[in-house]
Amino acid sequence: MDRRKFFKYGSLAAAGTAILSPIDVFGKEIDYVNKGGTAKNIIMLISDGMSTGTLNMADLYLNRIHGKSSTWMSLYKENKVSRALMDTASASSIVTDSAAASSAFGGGIRVKNGSLNISPNGKENLPIWQKFKQKGKKAGCVTTVPITHATPAGFCVYNDSRNAQSEIAEEYLKQGFDVLMGGGDQYFNSQKRKDRKNIYEEYEKKGYKVVKSRGQLMNSPNDKPLLGVFDHDGLPFTIDRNSSKELENKIPTLAEMTQKAIDCMKTHPKGFVLQVEGGKVDWAAHANDIAGLIHDQIAFDEALKVAMDFAEKDGNTLVIVTTDHGNANPGVIYGKNANENFESLQQYSHTNEYLLNQIHPDSSEKQIKELVEQENGFSLNSEEIKLIKSYYSGLVKEDGLYNYKNLPFKTFSEIQKNHNSIGWISMDHSADYVELAMFGPGSENLKPFIKNTDIHYFMLEAAGIENKF
Amino acid sequence: MDRRKFFKYGSLAAAGTAILSPIDVFGKEIDYVNKGGTAKNIIMLISDGMSTGTLNMADLYLNRIHGKSSTWMSLYKENKVSRALMDTASASSIVTDSAAASSAFGGGIRVKNGSLNISPNGKENLPIWQKFKQKGKKAGCVTTVPITHATPAGFCVYNDSRNAQSEIAEEYLKQGFDVLMGGGDQYFNSQKRKDRKNIYEEYEKKGYKVVKSRGQLMNSPNDKPLLGVFDHDGLPFTIDRNSSKELENKIPTLAEMTQKAIDCMKTHPKGFVLQVEGGKVDWAAHANDIAGLIHDQIAFDEALKVAMDFAEKDGNTLVIVTTDHGNANPGVIYGKNANENFESLQQYSHTNEYLLNQIHPDSSEKQIKELVEQENGFSLNSEEIKLIKSYYSGLVKEDGLYNYKNLPFKTFSEIQKNHNSIGWISMDHSADYVELAMFGPGSENLKPFIKNTDIHYFMLEAAGIENKF
Repeated sequence: MDRRKFFKYGSLAAAGTAILSPIDVFGKEIDYVNKGGTAKNIIMLISDGMSTGTLNMADLYLNRIHGKSSTWMSLYKENKVSRALMDTASASSIVTDSAAASSAFGGGIRVKNGSLNISPNGKENLPIWQKFKQKGKKAGCVTTVPITHATPAGFCVYNDSRNAQSEIAEEYLKQGFDVLMGGGDQYFNSQKRKDRKNIYEEYEKKGYKVVKSRGQLMNSPNDKPLLGVFDHDGLPFTIDRNSSKELENKIPTLAEMTQKAIDCMKTHPKGFVLQVEGGKVDWAAHANDIAGLIHDQIAFDEALKVAMDFAEKDGNTLVIVTTDHGNANPGVIYGKNANENFESLQQYSHTNEYLLNQIHPDSSEKQIKELVEQENGFSLNSEEIKLIKSYYSGLVKEDGLYNYKNLPFKTFSEIQKNHNSIGWISMDHSADYVELAMFGPGSENLKPFIKNTDIHYFMLEAAGIENKF
Repeated sequence: MDRRKFFKYGSLAAAGTAILSPIDVFGKEIDYVNKGGTAKNIIMLISDGMSTGTLNMADLYLNRIHGKSSTWMSLYKENKVSRALMDTASASSIVTDSAAASSAFGGGIRVKNGSLNISPNGKENLPIWQKFKQKGKKAGCVTTVPITHATPAGFCVYNDSRNAQSEIAEEYLKQGFDVLMGGGDQYFNSQKRKDRKNIYEEYEKKGYKVVKSRGQLMNSPNDKPLLGVFDHDGLPFTIDRNSSKELENKIPTLAEMTQKAIDCMKTHPKGFVLQVEGGKVDWAAHANDIAGLIHDQIAFDEALKVAMDFAEKDGNTLVIVTTDHGNANPGVIYGKNANENFESLQQYSHTNEYLLNQIHPDSSEKQIKELVEQENGFSLNSEEIKLIKSYYSGLVKEDGLYNYKNLPFKTFSEIQKNHNSIGWISMDHSADYVELAMFGPGSENLKPFIKNTDIHYFMLEAAGIENKF
């Protein structure tokens, strides 16, 4: 019997004949009919490195510029979800990295920063997507960073080091995950790998459809395992992609990848599990790059909408939406012009990464000034121009986790602060407790405060799977 | 019949004879028996200017140093409360000040920053503690800042300006609030007021017991209206108070004031409403003063425990705990020594305010170095010493909302960051959505996302009072 129809048309009389808790039957608490059952499918969405302020500013931006709420906040306004605050610490630190954070979800045990599902004592913890595969479900990951990066990897494999991305690309194939999409061509491409192996070919030999552009993705079949790799490393930031016809043609959005992943796995009789990562939200926070941050958070929110649209129709899908840790704690700062300053963000046409890459050692002061006026809508003073220029002369240098080119990210965001009223505590992760929400079967069991490791056991329990492997 | 006992021992048979929703009867959802009724009493606790990171760091500190959770997080872990994220904007800005924030709660209508319950169009909005007084309840406020400051004032009065604290001291008396405690002697004392009025005397004439020290407070009767004013302006920061026998004797804790306020009002047949403000949490954030922040958040948490202990026994009290806005978005930053650095905070014996007030234009470099070693447990380098010293020579000057003496708060917190791993986005409020939790009758109606103004109507409804005044 269709469970949803049963509840929709169920009655007290019917209750007597079915194994149901009375709570289900009497209706008042049942806003959504798919609470309380077993989850056939699970979609876990992780906006990597999302501080409270990131969630808040994306919603504020959508409200003030587009006149609508984010999907995430709409779920709250419509009272559709359970919520928790989550402690994100790792085995080695109150401030986790993404590898240990994903391992907490993925292995159910806290590990040291940098490692993937290998405990401090050397024990290998079976990753959760392997557990679900063993029980017959399909399993996949989609992300905007390399598909071999820490957050997808923590659900799929174990490895001493998150940096072993070339190995991880091969390990995914060995495990036979059903959908894998993101960036990371350098870990699959024989021209770029140190060992010159052609990993794409190995996937194809095992029956995978391999796609490398949005067009190919849109035309790929839904009945084969799928590997989609769309860029050398991480995918472009959303705002930069959306400003370039060429990138729009080449790179799918996170929402499109999510939709495709669902389409490829939704008819599987034993159900599926899917991780969706907004990975470049974290990279934007590491660069204090506000346009990167807000527009990638919005792109993540659009992927959440895809997941929710499916889950609400399906009735058997648990959706979990959260982050793995805060990053840089950005926020809009009090001041007379806070509103106008925040709204000036709609004038930003690219990320700071894009903008700062337009400047060269021989850029003139006039060119720099005009560039910022065009890209951000404000004018630099001559001191600021000189300061920025100094970074291109080799005189000064800025470091940073994803700042391979030593661009003046921090310096520029501090200049922007005078015009957009947005501040950052650092260019790295924070220990803040983070937001987590759930929809669907099992979500009613969520407690208001959890540890990241709890999610591992929660997913198994929601799916009715005993943790014996 | 005692409602609590009924539910505790209630049965299916009993249910048939009572007007109850079936949900109540079958038990699973009824963790706490005082949900669903009408609130006789309301205690609303506001940790002023508490960013997510402030809540988080106080809990981390208690966990790591004292081996226990905060009361606030314990309520989550024990699944005792309903939770919401709250949008804190004012009529004039996405980033509110405390006057507009308190007016949103207090008047149910957003006003411009700086004003108290006067709408942009000039309309006066009846403050909620006056509404409850009209309905026969007792009403009071306790705080660690002047009792005439924005947050208590927004529940009690209207005024074009939050700065009119001398007027507000008189207006409170006119309205006849039952318990008023905090700082602000300058607004009551004839020696300090411009108009030389003796406001204390006027309170006494109207039957108030006036107390000016912790000892007097402890010995004051519970059957008279009470005015307690314990300092010239704000009360000392908790960590400074706790390091001084003299201050410990003179100044009550927020928890003690909360207990006394409850004791004075709890036997009133028509019930009471009480606001409890951790006002110096905000002042600490404005100064990026970590020891001030964490220890005043913990003091606030202890006041929450007093409120919860009463509410759990009483069964008819709605407890609301939240903040009015974020401030400075502090957080622990990722790094190899994040744990040790955070734990070094236990060596801090006073606030930065205290420490920086020990330095004088003629302090030697050696004295400054030794002072910081003694107070914070780390050593300044000679460049840092010179930098700090420069602020005392009149050469450079730091401004700030509560920084009357132009002390180098920001500079010093940036030095501390290298040793304690704590960062701040600014020295002012943020637009972040904030945490709110509720316990007791009515709390089951809380939706997961609310506006600050919703709280006004929520309190009236929880108390069963129609909003007609």
